[in-house]
Amino acid sequence: MGMTIAEKIIAAAAGVDHVKPGDIHTVNLDRLMSNDGTTHLTVDMYHNKLTKPRIADPGKLVFIVDHNVPADNPKTAAAQKKMRDFAREHKIDFWEGKGVCHQIMMENYVCPGELIFGADSHTCTYGALGAFGTGVGCTDFLYGMVTGTSWVLVPESVKFNLVGKLPDGVYPRDLMLTIIGQIGANGCNYQVMEFCGEGAKTLSVNDRMVLCNLSVEAGAKTGIFEADETALEYLEEWGRKPKAVYKSDPDAVYAREYTIDLSTIEPVIARPDFVDDVVPAKEVCGVKIDEAFLGSCNNGRIEELRIGAGIIKGKKVAENVRFLVVPASLFVYKQALKEGLIDIFMESGAIVMNPNCSVCWGSCQGVIGENEVLISTGTRNFKGRAGHPSSKVYLGSAATVTASAIAGEITLA
Amino acid sequence: MGMTIAEKIIAAAAGVDHVKPGDIHTVNLDRLMSNDGTTHLTVDMYHNKLTKPRIADPGKLVFIVDHNVPADNPKTAAAQKKMRDFAREHKIDFWEGKGVCHQIMMENYVCPGELIFGADSHTCTYGALGAFGTGVGCTDFLYGMVTGTSWVLVPESVKFNLVGKLPDGVYPRDLMLTIIGQIGANGCNYQVMEFCGEGAKTLSVNDRMVLCNLSVEAGAKTGIFEADETALEYLEEWGRKPKAVYKSDPDAVYAREYTIDLSTIEPVIARPDFVDDVVPAKEVCGVKIDEAFLGSCNNGRIEELRIGAGIIKGKKVAENVRFLVVPASLFVYKQALKEGLIDIFMESGAIVMNPNCSVCWGSCQGVIGENEVLISTGTRNFKGRAGHPSSKVYLGSAATVTASAIAGEITLA
Repeated sequence: MGMTIAEKIIAAAAGVDHVKPGDIHTVNLDRLMSNDGTTHLTVDMYHNKLTKPRIADPGKLVFIVDHNVPADNPKTAAAQKKMRDFAREHKIDFWEGKGVCHQIMMENYVCPGELIFGADSHTCTYGALGAFGTGVGCTDFLYGMVTGTSWVLVPESVKFNLVGKLPDGVYPRDLMLTIIGQIGANGCNYQVMEFCGEGAKTLSVNDRMVLCNLSVEAGAKTGIFEADETALEYLEEWGRKPKAVYKSDPDAVYAREYTIDLSTIEPVIARPDFVDDVVPAKEVCGVKIDEAFLGSCNNGRIEELRIGAGIIKGKKVAENVRFLVVPASLFVYKQALKEGLIDIFMESGAIVMNPNCSVCWGSCQGVIGENEVLISTGTRNFKGRAGHPSSKVYLGSAATVTASAIAGEITLA
Repeated sequence: MGMTIAEKIIAAAAGVDHVKPGDIHTVNLDRLMSNDGTTHLTVDMYHNKLTKPRIADPGKLVFIVDHNVPADNPKTAAAQKKMRDFAREHKIDFWEGKGVCHQIMMENYVCPGELIFGADSHTCTYGALGAFGTGVGCTDFLYGMVTGTSWVLVPESVKFNLVGKLPDGVYPRDLMLTIIGQIGANGCNYQVMEFCGEGAKTLSVNDRMVLCNLSVEAGAKTGIFEADETALEYLEEWGRKPKAVYKSDPDAVYAREYTIDLSTIEPVIARPDFVDDVVPAKEVCGVKIDEAFLGSCNNGRIEELRIGAGIIKGKKVAENVRFLVVPASLFVYKQALKEGLIDIFMESGAIVMNPNCSVCWGSCQGVIGENEVLISTGTRNFKGRAGHPSSKVYLGSAATVTASAIAGEITLA
């Protein structure tokens, strides 16, 4: 019986020839990423709970401060200091203020064929390069850090056969929200969403990141693409080589298969307070907004900044609307500077901020108040996600978000 | 008996020919500025305390969101919304995310000869253009807003006769901290610090802002310069005309006079936790820092960004030090973009942020934790000003701050 890409990665990490869904395997982890959401808790446990504190391989660890950058109160400052000091003491790669963790990982670490645990739910992003990335809590992270290993209950894979091409003005974010709307927030619980087919070939690594990143919003363990030429070119540009390039076998077994014709996708919006409450964007046009956010590990890369800048160039943000633009990494910011995009956003009245999770994390930047309405390219629109419990978050593409910032209400680009 | 500049401004605002220190006068206010520190309180009082709520002249009012930009929690979001809605309802000039209030005021409103109340202690900055700006609480602000008037107890003036020229590598901030160190935090309580003499002529409007801005740290009601050619050129560049250009009369009376030879000034540091605990910078060299801040209404303009960028170009921020660079306004940011300064800071590893009060306000950005040490171009170094009560803030010039960010400890440029 053949294996899927995900199964092949797990088999290699487990040092066995074959795995199948339902098996439990001990695996060697290729890399472990942790951010300032929970690293201080891991460090506390490391110091206080272990009889023999040790790190299997500091070279596999990456610590990234991205959630509250710069620190917004003495507590987050202390948590970050704990992380910083620990990283220095143990010679752990440490990033601070350089971007959202998943973007930093994709730019600098992730390689096809790797098994990566991250103490953040959107670690599933790494499937865009044919890696198996998944989110874990800080206790699982600690175990991985100490032993270099962990366990995996092999998940089933679900095939998403993409055909055709997205129409002009429709974006991968519309596609993935549409899929989540169709299958629901539990649609792929503890499964792998494998994206393949000719339609997948039309998507850039950025586009694939958009899809994989949101796979957890359908309950998936991860999302994954085959590391094809597009992925390998990206990897080469960043000066890395694959660990292994896997294809799913023709006789691999899938729990389900979907075929999605990209040409039928239209701009959509996920309405408050659920990522799977997805409707055609035209159905919610006219909803007044207080704030718009262009950024996040889902949709804050150069591709989306170009889309936003192209729409807002020569126009102004609506009066009394805050439009926050937050590049996903310093690399993205510098590229946007070079292309003149930052100038365009600043001219328009947008507030351009330092790379970090920002509004998507809803804890310290661009927080919205009682009954306020946000349209966002962030990852989630749960109740209170961006501020007051009565506030509302709509999720849309960079194009829809930017057009709405200009109009002062949800509108199509 | 002659009058000082400050007295002439008050006399004109009171509609009388002559005032002298100790007189109380009702005055017409030329302008009233309020920021998100307290405007929501003013709005609450306006709605809840007045039998006949009214605004004398909305055209005189300016509301500026600059303290928590963008909002960092639902409470500040609600406070800002209150401010935004009130401004819209009453057609009040409203700025959000465009810079620190005093910088916005200097770029867009302040004219020589004006009497301006601001609900912020550093309103004294406006003396750099020969205006009388002073800070008031939100109840005084409300009275001014409703009536267009207020009262002034005419302050004494103290003359600071500046001679000579600052040496290379020594900055107006070193000068003003030196003065505050000499006269103390109560050195000019309820007095006007009038800066004059040939040395004053060598100072740009930016430099004068640095001096006037910190005058409140010596207890002064305001700091002021004569609006000479330098000031009028600045004003013309911004497309404004003076209300009136006043000179102090030869027989004006001063409470005290100081003569300060600029050529004797050296780089200084104000040590924690008092702005007047000033020592030569070389005495504190070697103190390890966790964070460095280049920004604020005192020292975040293009002049200081040029100084910082000149020092850090081609160099890197020390490992485990956060260097936060926050232009004082969007105008400054755009100029810095044009000059390539933002690129230089980003290359160095600095975190460049959106224009706002940021670390100087210590409430939501770059907050420091327990026992952490900050070197800052901000306005104050009081206990807990930038975060945890046990943290320490050193104040220095843009040059000293930048050099320290590179070294990881306080050092001279």
